[in-house]
Amino acid sequence: MARFDIAIIGTGPGGVSAAITSKIRNKTVLLIGSPSLSSKLQKAHAIYNYPGFPGVSGQALADALKAHLDSMDIAITEDRIASIYAMGDYFALQGGKEIYEASTVILGSGVVAGKPLPGEETLLGRGVSYCATCDAPLYRGKTAAVVGYSRTEEAEARFLSEICSEVLYFPMYRDTPDLPDSVRIISEPVTGIDEQDGKRRVLTKTDAYPVDGVFVLRESISPGQLVPGLELDGSFIKVDRTMSTNIPGCFACGDVTGQPFQYIKAAGEGNIAALSAVAYLDKK
Amino acid sequence: MARFDIAIIGTGPGGVSAAITSKIRNKTVLLIGSPSLSSKLQKAHAIYNYPGFPGVSGQALADALKAHLDSMDIAITEDRIASIYAMGDYFALQGGKEIYEASTVILGSGVVAGKPLPGEETLLGRGVSYCATCDAPLYRGKTAAVVGYSRTEEAEARFLSEICSEVLYFPMYRDTPDLPDSVRIISEPVTGIDEQDGKRRVLTKTDAYPVDGVFVLRESISPGQLVPGLELDGSFIKVDRTMSTNIPGCFACGDVTGQPFQYIKAAGEGNIAALSAVAYLDKK
Repeated sequence: MARFDIAIIGTGPGGVSAAITSKIRNKTVLLIGSPSLSSKLQKAHAIYNYPGFPGVSGQALADALKAHLDSMDIAITEDRIASIYAMGDYFALQGGKEIYEASTVILGSGVVAGKPLPGEETLLGRGVSYCATCDAPLYRGKTAAVVGYSRTEEAEARFLSEICSEVLYFPMYRDTPDLPDSVRIISEPVTGIDEQDGKRRVLTKTDAYPVDGVFVLRESISPGQLVPGLELDGSFIKVDRTMSTNIPGCFACGDVTGQPFQYIKAAGEGNIAALSAVAYLDKK
Repeated sequence: MARFDIAIIGTGPGGVSAAITSKIRNKTVLLIGSPSLSSKLQKAHAIYNYPGFPGVSGQALADALKAHLDSMDIAITEDRIASIYAMGDYFALQGGKEIYEASTVILGSGVVAGKPLPGEETLLGRGVSYCATCDAPLYRGKTAAVVGYSRTEEAEARFLSEICSEVLYFPMYRDTPDLPDSVRIISEPVTGIDEQDGKRRVLTKTDAYPVDGVFVLRESISPGQLVPGLELDGSFIKVDRTMSTNIPGCFACGDVTGQPFQYIKAAGEGNIAALSAVAYLDKK
């Protein structure tokens, strides 16, 4: 398996900036994210304080960042990383599509919208999963629920409906889901997850829905879940001024490191994280 | 005297970013620097890692930053700050032209080219000065030397020649100075400054030039000299992740806070420093 010098998780301004500087420093880069970069950025109506782009729309800034990546032949690998394991002198990254290896990792996965659901973290790995592609086979012919935080997750529900005997879909957003009839849509806000009689139950204000497996699908998962052993400061990754985390070879940038949540702050931190990763690689 | 909410020293990408975010947050801003922003930036041939501007020339990026300031009606006050004093609940900024007041200060004055000359710091305030406009009157009818690190300083030598009985000019750069005949140009690299028989002496490899006052003029002065009591880390300003210094209300961004010396890192830090200054003001 090809081992990359630097794996970068996230294609917001932090991850993009990290990728650009890493490439300039002649490192091999695995940039994992979305071809449209960041839905948060894309939805931004106008950004007034990204210096050099007065009053730019989020879409226009995303386009400029994408053009910058393209001009340097930096490809985006479209995948979602479920877990990252520090293996000693390299990292193993569990994606939905495959497992990747890299000597260093830069986490730029953004801020997690909302807190974990009550019961979610306790049951994680015991009937609760963050990755349909990884864990769907466990529920072949069984029942599953998807708690989807954005329309992107509908594709995962569709995929699960081909494997499971029944799929319940709980949209945690306002749009009407576009799903086949085989998926049962339950438009009640989920209040928690628990376990009873060997089944997981998705709880709403008025009801409880027993299933075998529950998939909680958000744009990004909490950093503590992503990298076991990562030291946090509240719900954010603890970093120093060099953007180093407590795990050697693991760096972070952008919203995932805490306030302020600003595009230019993320871009600046991505640059620092990349140069710290380069220094770490060069010392090895 | 008008007291500004936020005084920003330096018009590189850090200072510009700080000014933009401060203005967006409805604070009154005093941005002190050069109308051409930054000679270091201007001279940059091509910059590859300011995300959104692939391979931009330094001049083009400076133009984009200037256009951003203009679009937000942020004016640049052309002056050079010699000293900043923490007065309790505000700061007094000693400029060449006047004294300014501000409730908070953001230092983005860049990296100081080279180390202080031997003897420079010991004799500062005792015959050695960083500000011709401030201290020229002390040398009326007396002799002065100017150690000039860039062509900008020739204007100061010209001004001193109208006041002093004799002015010696030591260019610390390659171009031939364009100065009136009344200024004696000595093209020998300065190796230090000392004191003998009540005079200061500018030392070169082969000679010693006695004068009453020595003006050491660089694009930026060392941060420890600029703000008495400021805690340093080596020759850089010590800051935490909020870009706060050890002095309440005093923040810093960009090269002055240390490596890496990168435009996008400076811009990101300027944003953080501005938001920290805003939070400080709002708490007062």
